[in-house]
Amino acid sequence: MPSAARRSPRLTYAAAGVNLEAKDAFTESLGALMRRTHSPRVIDNPGGFAGLFRLDFNEKIFKRNYRDPVLVACADGVGTKLKLAIEVAKYDTLGIDLVAMNVNDMIVQGAEPLFFLDYIAIGSVDRPVLDALVRGIAEGCQQSGCALLGGETAEMPDLYQPGDFDLAGFAVGVLELPRAIDPGRVEVGDIVLGLASNGIHSNGYSLVRRIVKDARLDLRKVYPELAEQPPARKRGKAAAAASRAASTARPLGEVLLTPTRIYVNPILKLLKSYKVKKVIGGMAHITGSGIEGNLCRALHKKVDAVIDPAAWPRPAVFRFLQDRGGVDEAEMRRVFNLGIGFCVIVRKAFAASVREALAKSGETVYEIGRIEKGKGEVRFTA
Amino acid sequence: MPSAARRSPRLTYAAAGVNLEAKDAFTESLGALMRRTHSPRVIDNPGGFAGLFRLDFNEKIFKRNYRDPVLVACADGVGTKLKLAIEVAKYDTLGIDLVAMNVNDMIVQGAEPLFFLDYIAIGSVDRPVLDALVRGIAEGCQQSGCALLGGETAEMPDLYQPGDFDLAGFAVGVLELPRAIDPGRVEVGDIVLGLASNGIHSNGYSLVRRIVKDARLDLRKVYPELAEQPPARKRGKAAAAASRAASTARPLGEVLLTPTRIYVNPILKLLKSYKVKKVIGGMAHITGSGIEGNLCRALHKKVDAVIDPAAWPRPAVFRFLQDRGGVDEAEMRRVFNLGIGFCVIVRKAFAASVREALAKSGETVYEIGRIEKGKGEVRFTA
Repeated sequence: MPSAARRSPRLTYAAAGVNLEAKDAFTESLGALMRRTHSPRVIDNPGGFAGLFRLDFNEKIFKRNYRDPVLVACADGVGTKLKLAIEVAKYDTLGIDLVAMNVNDMIVQGAEPLFFLDYIAIGSVDRPVLDALVRGIAEGCQQSGCALLGGETAEMPDLYQPGDFDLAGFAVGVLELPRAIDPGRVEVGDIVLGLASNGIHSNGYSLVRRIVKDARLDLRKVYPELAEQPPARKRGKAAAAASRAASTARPLGEVLLTPTRIYVNPILKLLKSYKVKKVIGGMAHITGSGIEGNLCRALHKKVDAVIDPAAWPRPAVFRFLQDRGGVDEAEMRRVFNLGIGFCVIVRKAFAASVREALAKSGETVYEIGRIEKGKGEVRFTA
Repeated sequence: MPSAARRSPRLTYAAAGVNLEAKDAFTESLGALMRRTHSPRVIDNPGGFAGLFRLDFNEKIFKRNYRDPVLVACADGVGTKLKLAIEVAKYDTLGIDLVAMNVNDMIVQGAEPLFFLDYIAIGSVDRPVLDALVRGIAEGCQQSGCALLGGETAEMPDLYQPGDFDLAGFAVGVLELPRAIDPGRVEVGDIVLGLASNGIHSNGYSLVRRIVKDARLDLRKVYPELAEQPPARKRGKAAAAASRAASTARPLGEVLLTPTRIYVNPILKLLKSYKVKKVIGGMAHITGSGIEGNLCRALHKKVDAVIDPAAWPRPAVFRFLQDRGGVDEAEMRRVFNLGIGFCVIVRKAFAASVREALAKSGETVYEIGRIEKGKGEVRFTA
């Protein structure tokens, strides 16, 4: 007797707040989006319990390209940036943030991202929101050349408030062990190059949101202080571009939601072009706890990185938040990237050519400091 | 000027509800726990931005053991079982659930788990809770022979209510492609073996919690109906053991939190012992949507699995929940594993020997059904 067809007032899973059909429909809709990120390495596995990624296909990763392959894996989320996205109902770029947080960590080791998986937990299935989130994740995967191999969408009534959700991601890559980035390689005299960030990226949003609340800022308002000033040393074309940027000013909420910059392509290109010569001493992805808390992870115990905070222009959004929130300079440095999203420590003799190579890849690069004798710390000149 | 040392009423990250020091202290404490799960394949990478797992070490996975290696990855959480754990303040086994949900999915493909990463999101850092969660994760990793390679702990004030948290996990494994489990391999006449579950495992907890609430059940109470009946066909020793189990009855909350059984070791052993002969037609991890929703994923479009629901004893906890909640039998089947946590489809001629091998590995195995001509569905005989 097919009791499923019976109409009854009895307790069901759906009545308990979980809609398996809606979730399944969403899961099925993901196929096309995911396939857009798939290379022939990804094995089609419909209905499968796990994603399959072929190591030796066509260009044999492990037998030809790699002699001593190491898998590199990391997990990360986007933090409370997502609460801000929920407040302004803009969901399409959080996925880029999610992928960025993971792959930028991975390339610090010298690894090439292979694939990505996501975890989305939500109070109740909201298709437009979920679709936008996964579109962003797929976009981030495409930007970093990795396959979106799978993921999990969990419907959790009671744990998440209506409209709330959480996002986590996980990336796996591969690294040739003798070419792994090693803090022991950093030398006195090395130069620290800083790659410009896209803004706040995905850390410090609990403080950002607190400032927004305490200073009664309006996420929908265009604040003139958020317009970038043209850098003093740039004239002509650059100044014109900067003033164009200022004239296309965006509301605060949008500025705060600018997606995290993904550094995969320029960094992998750089590492490939210096395969033999070890010109890269170390790298750091600048996340929570800022330059001081992250760049020190690239150092060994006998060197310091001495950073000149005047060496790069601080983006307007940081000045705005510091001013409106009354935040100490030391706290700003401990929490935010302040305009530098990724650091590369290079041999002095190669600093100019590395800088040029990164600029050619589209990065804005500043020489922000140098390596001196020390004890594994980051110091600021001012 | 070290403005960090200044006492000031200015806004800080800590004031905004995020305590980086507490989080860092917890992260540092994880080292010992994680190392317990590490084989020499895991490369020590203190302060690193990602976990490193060596593929070719000693026993060379890719050059010797595997000819056509495929990486297998999956992501999963524990669902609202964690809300129940929060209600009874018991946190030490959720990590086992988390690992189980992932590695049990992975072995369905025929893959061997290599490493695991976790994501924990919490309203504010609570050391005893986090410690217990990670102890459970490490225990789950040890039970499944995989390394806890890394993870992320996110402190998210505002997203999670006080005391609340979420857990997600990611597992990566390896599979020899020609030995991958393939639904096309299932044949009419094959036998479906069911491996006993430990209870509800990690699905259907929104319904469980709704039943608890609606029927005003007390999670701290020992309900006599929760005692397992000795199976009718077992006498003597088995009956005595069963009545011992009944006499050590546990409170409802504990019964509901029994950790998900991890099937990695018995299944990998089984697969290794039948490397040449293809006696395993398919497998299924019974999670959300029950036997019917998961076993069908192991079938091709020309066969059905016909399951006899009387072929195994239904654990007391399911009878109790169905009774107290007034849940339809069809809904019970759609939501819960009902006592079968993992299915193996085997050639009829090998059913007895596979059953014996699994029993030797400590599993309780039932012959629960057979494969007939059909259209890729799961049918019940009653």
